[in-house]
Parts: sequence; structure tokens; C-alpha cells
Amino acid sequence: MIYVVGLGPGGAAEITPRALSALKKCDLIIGYKVYVDLIRPIFGGEKELIVSPMKKERDRCEEALRLSLSGRTVGLISSGDPGIYGMAGIMLEVAGGRTEVEIIPGITAASSAAAILGAPLTCDFAVISLSDLLTPWETVTKRLRAAAAADMVICLYNPASNSRPEHLARAADILMETLPADRPAGWVRSAGREGQERCVTTLGALKNQDIDMFCTVIIGNSVTRVIDGCLVTPRGYRE
Amino acid sequence: MIYVVGLGPGGAAEITPRALSALKKCDLIIGYKVYVDLIRPIFGGEKELIVSPMKKERDRCEEALRLSLSGRTVGLISSGDPGIYGMAGIMLEVAGGRTEVEIIPGITAASSAAAILGAPLTCDFAVISLSDLLTPWETVTKRLRAAAAADMVICLYNPASNSRPEHLARAADILMETLPADRPAGWVRSAGREGQERCVTTLGALKNQDIDMFCTVIIGNSVTRVIDGCLVTPRGYRE
Repeated sequence: MIYVVGLGPGGAAEITPRALSALKKCDLIIGYKVYVDLIRPIFGGEKELIVSPMKKERDRCEEALRLSLSGRTVGLISSGDPGIYGMAGIMLEVAGGRTEVEIIPGITAASSAAAILGAPLTCDFAVISLSDLLTPWETVTKRLRAAAAADMVICLYNPASNSRPEHLARAADILMETLPADRPAGWVRSAGREGQERCVTTLGALKNQDIDMFCTVIIGNSVTRVIDGCLVTPRGYRE
Repeated sequence: MIYVVGLGPGGAAEITPRALSALKKCDLIIGYKVYVDLIRPIFGGEKELIVSPMKKERDRCEEALRLSLSGRTVGLISSGDPGIYGMAGIMLEVAGGRTEVEIIPGITAASSAAAILGAPLTCDFAVISLSDLLTPWETVTKRLRAAAAADMVICLYNPASNSRPEHLARAADILMETLPADRPAGWVRSAGREGQERCVTTLGALKNQDIDMFCTVIIGNSVTRVIDGCLVTPRGYRE
């Protein structure tokens, strides 16, 4: 049995009882160092904890499968929701039905960032990652243009990284082909963790801000506005 | 102080400690009957619980504001995440800065349905509600077409209701203008609650299925496939 478990934004207070109870059933728990460190205070004494390196997702899933087939119960952990840009898909692919896999959702970055900014996602929205490690940049830009044209709120995951610091500025330029530069927008760094920061700003100003891989960015639709320092999208046009 | 609290899919095991701890600070808790019933076993003896009728969201927020301004700490509860098609936005609008409002996210239906179906949301996706109570149907159809044209996975909230039983079939026809009828899709009824059901199917077959307001529907993108009875979208095209 393999449990693929989402820990939510990063604090113990946002891990669900269901996630904890699945991890309690595990013989060993695998994840990036930062996630393993998060659960070490809870399970450190009683479980084998395996720190897995970044960017070796397939290897990690193959190890989880091997351990599971040897008769052990495995927990594969990550922050947020493993079903949203997470390990759930690749684990199901690697397992291919050879062992039971249960996905346990956590609160994803779109939800946690939205709550910190106000309520920008009350209406239809698109979730788009600006990473082109696995998706060609042309596909990313097509999706940005489609979401803007359909007046959807846009939530950006992986807005920048050391190897692609310019992606967010390029995305903002693409959106400003059709959206106004003063469109309300916001970002959150390290939602729910030490060092949390929030900023309510505009689409145009996103280009000049210090936004990194720990940030989630939200760009409003045509009715999103700022109320008392919060980014709010009214639920519809008919009220 | 008003806490707008998401209870997640519906079982006590998916309510976060943060949500429970906020409700513990409240003098009274307001929500639809089904949500109040959910927390009654936990808080029934010690808190005033106010059952509020459906479709009176603005009235409920005005009552929450009035009670908060009278010096009481108020919890406004709903299932899922109140920031996603929930009460967070309207509460911030009604409050208008007159009282402190904290939004506490929960696991939204997209996450819980995806986990039950497999891992369809590992890649860019659009979240679209088929309710036209607050958004004109023409806007909904524009968003459906945009998401399909950009090869995004599509997650449908409010796919049908008694007053608009035909919306899902109409949406499927719109999507099939460009997407194949055999595109993998799935739906979940009452995720995480009694009576939970799941179905992995195709876009074309959605038209003939018994899908109601308690369901969430997910339609895959061009690379989504079925692995061991699960709906899985590989994370990218480059692996």
C-alpha cells in the first residue's frame, strides 16, 4: 500500500486528521527534506524517514513501489495537494496497478494564497504553471492567452525560479496584450510558513517585484477589485 | 472578528486543526443546515449554532457582520474551500473593512474529486461552474471553449441542478465541437461523504449519466488517460 499524502501549505495546523492517520499506518515515509523535516517532530521516533532529492520524482516513485511490493506500507509526502502539480499522477503511472495507491488531498497553494489575499477565486479560474520543464513554453502562453480572453481569474504556480527568472515578466507581457496593466493582482510567498509575505498589486507592477519559486500569483478578472486591502472577485455579474 | 471557515469535503477527518481551532474561538457559528449538522457533534453543547437558509448568502453575511459588530466572535462555515465559489468574497464585500475577517481555507471539491478519480489535475486546468445564477450562460460557454482550445483539463462545479438539469449535456456538446467524444472524463458524487460514488467515463458518455448538484466533473486534456481504473494526466509532454 502506498499513501500519497498532501500536507497542505506547510504548518502542522493545516494537515488534516486523515493525512496524519494515513501516515500513522506507514512503515516508512519518503519526501523532500523540507517535508520530512515538517513531520519529523510528529513521527521522528517511530518511523523510518527517507529524504529524497529534488527533481528525481520518477526515482522516488519507483523506490516507493519497490518498498511497497516488499510488503511495507509507504507514505509519499509533499506540501499542498499531491494531485495538483504533485506526485499523485506519476505515482499512479509508476505503480500501474501493481500495488494499491491512495491519494490523500491537502490544501493546494491556490486555496491558501487566495485566502491570504482575500477572495479572488470565487468565480471561474485557470491554474497555470509557468515552469517549462515539462510543458513547452508555447503551450503555457496559449493557456495564458485563452484564460485572459475568457475573462477568467488566473492563478500562477511556479511563477519564477533561478533558472527562469524572467518567466513571470514574460507572462505579464502576454497577458497585457489584452488585459489592462492596472488589473488587480496579488502574490503570496511561503503561504502558511515562516517568512510568509503577501502583496496586493497590479498586473503591470508584477514585472518589477521580487517573486520567486516560493510564490503563488493571482491575477484578477474584469470585476476583481481591492476592498480594504484584499483582492476580491464578486461571485457574479448579476447581483 | 469573523472567521470564514472551510470544512473540506464533509467528513470530520478532513477538517484541519486550524479550522477547528478558529471555531473554538467563536461565540456562535452560522451555516447551512448540512454544515451545522456536521459540526454539531463537536461544538453542539458549547456554542450557539445558527442554521441559515440556502440562497440567502448576502443576508447571512449581513447577520454575521451585525453579530460581529455587537462584540461577538462569529464563525461562518461551509464545505470545501470558502474561497472557491464560497462565502469568502461576499463576506469581505459586506464587511467592507468594518470588522476583521479571516478566511480559513479547506480542501476544495476539485482536489477531493481528483484524488478519488486518480490524478487528473497534475497539469494546467480550468475550474468552471455551470451555474448561471450569477454568471451569464454565454460567459460560461466562452470559458468552456477557451479551456478546450488551450488543451486544459476542465473541472466543472455545479454541473447540474433541479432547475437546470440540461446544463451538463449542453456543456458536453460545446466541448465536443473541438474535443473527441472518447476523451477520458470522470465524476464524483458526495466526495468524502456518505453515498460517495465515482465514475471514470468519457466526455461523450457524460451526457447520459445521472449527474446532479452533488457531483464534480473532470474532463481530461489531450494526454489524460485511464490507468488501472484511474483518470491520470501525466505531468507534461516532455518525459
